[in-house]
Amino acid sequence: MLAEIDVTVREVGMRDGLQSIATIMPTADKQRWCREEFAAGVREIEVCSFVPPKLLPQFQDAVEVCTYALGLSGLTVVALVPNVKGAERAIAAGVHKMSFPMSVSESHSRSNVRRSVDESVVEFARICELVRSVNPRRRPKVSGGLATAFGCTIEGPVAEDRVVALAEKLAEVGADEVVVADTVGYAAPAAIRRVFRAVIAALGRLPVAAHFHDTRGLGLANVLAAWDVGVRAFDASLGGFGGCPYAPGASGNIATEDLVFMLEGMGLRTGVDLQRLIAVRAANAKALPGETFHGAIAIAGLPKGFVSASRLAS
Amino acid sequence: MLAEIDVTVREVGMRDGLQSIATIMPTADKQRWCREEFAAGVREIEVCSFVPPKLLPQFQDAVEVCTYALGLSGLTVVALVPNVKGAERAIAAGVHKMSFPMSVSESHSRSNVRRSVDESVVEFARICELVRSVNPRRRPKVSGGLATAFGCTIEGPVAEDRVVALAEKLAEVGADEVVVADTVGYAAPAAIRRVFRAVIAALGRLPVAAHFHDTRGLGLANVLAAWDVGVRAFDASLGGFGGCPYAPGASGNIATEDLVFMLEGMGLRTGVDLQRLIAVRAANAKALPGETFHGAIAIAGLPKGFVSASRLAS
Repeated sequence: MLAEIDVTVREVGMRDGLQSIATIMPTADKQRWCREEFAAGVREIEVCSFVPPKLLPQFQDAVEVCTYALGLSGLTVVALVPNVKGAERAIAAGVHKMSFPMSVSESHSRSNVRRSVDESVVEFARICELVRSVNPRRRPKVSGGLATAFGCTIEGPVAEDRVVALAEKLAEVGADEVVVADTVGYAAPAAIRRVFRAVIAALGRLPVAAHFHDTRGLGLANVLAAWDVGVRAFDASLGGFGGCPYAPGASGNIATEDLVFMLEGMGLRTGVDLQRLIAVRAANAKALPGETFHGAIAIAGLPKGFVSASRLAS
Repeated sequence: MLAEIDVTVREVGMRDGLQSIATIMPTADKQRWCREEFAAGVREIEVCSFVPPKLLPQFQDAVEVCTYALGLSGLTVVALVPNVKGAERAIAAGVHKMSFPMSVSESHSRSNVRRSVDESVVEFARICELVRSVNPRRRPKVSGGLATAFGCTIEGPVAEDRVVALAEKLAEVGADEVVVADTVGYAAPAAIRRVFRAVIAALGRLPVAAHFHDTRGLGLANVLAAWDVGVRAFDASLGGFGGCPYAPGASGNIATEDLVFMLEGMGLRTGVDLQRLIAVRAANAKALPGETFHGAIAIAGLPKGFVSASRLAS
């Protein structure tokens, strides 16, 4: 039985984590990961990316993984789509939500997806248009992601009003949700508060989610800052894994288990059973022997007498 | 030239870090550490512990290290004193401030210092009395530290009103400052806010500082939470080093360099030059070859175009 929740924890490790490692995780392991993390209480998982399989062989089993995940009743199945072509494949696979990432930084956009920022907005608008042509009963939600919203390794600082303006554009052309991302772990809590406050004010009732990397150790402080100004959905990667190819030894996304520990420790219900989540991480570590796992709670163990806000039967 | 500061970063690695490792750092290295971190802008350093040298050979050079540190004009030199005997030695050495740690948890107190909590308060009162007998021109400040204020590995949870009551007692018997410590890394931001709010309200104008461990990854989120409710002084350990003997692989105190990165990134002036601070860490790593260093910013590097609030000539 699921308790009501105060905050949504969304697993993105199957996409953001797996895309940045060399090891290809076998399909059966991806399915196990998905099943077990769902069983631990996570209700939204980005399970794959519909990039061209030649570009990222990690996701050549995208359809199989989606089909399996869609069988887990109650799970929101998300897939990354880099363009209209990817969106067509994701729609055919039947996902519940498509996430489209675009950069706020012009240089990052050009070097990463070989498109200008304006061209990315146009591509996103096309995806939204495509989605509107789908039968409403099978129509997926569309999430617009603003990468490098707090700075970029090429350009450095990014103007905050530019983030707000782009969030408004994504909403205008049809986003069901906007995700603001600190892709390279540059943000500090003060900027987090300013930007999310402004974006939330600009978008009214449209959901705004946060995607933070812990590259410079501020990931969870930034979650707290975003929570304080009204963000209620956070991306995270089990084992903080994936890392950043440009900073060897540095961690990648915030670790899902550490995020859940902090939120539950604050009395906020995530609906996630922390012990079971940590067990999924352990199984992943076995399935990916050479890879570096990050995160603190799995190593240090839960505090004695720790009471989880969700009070699942753990 | 020092800018005005918004928040005080206090180095405790020379005591809290060094006391938990096996390697004895040579006196010359301790002096270099002290000198270089002072040169980087840190203005308060806990340089040693006046525990009996037989108990902790790491600090057999306590007097030498203090004498050296006292030569750095503008540095507040702090030493830990476990009892009146230690206080006598610290006073003789001429330190500016003595820090006396006591546990909020009864079991931790008995197992760690073989005294009850009440006996610790009595010992602290004796130290305060001793200090009042010192010539005012040479009289050190006395800092009372409340360890395990957010839970204990033996007892588990600790009552929040107990922390406030003990803080009031320390103030009553003569503390110049109270430090509230999450010794084992159990605290989450919500508890931090509740407890520090209550302690600050109870102590009026008496300074209240925070001492956080990052054992479970929440150290910097807790700093943000404490900052939000008015805490303006934070302990930290360069390289987050020291670790926790009960959790292999887990980190110890929050890393000084990550703390400075977060605060400066938030536009808060610490007066510390982050690049120079990271250089001191690198020198320490050479001086302590077998030891594990933690912290993220030294590994990932500063964000491109990062602007430090203190704008020192770095």
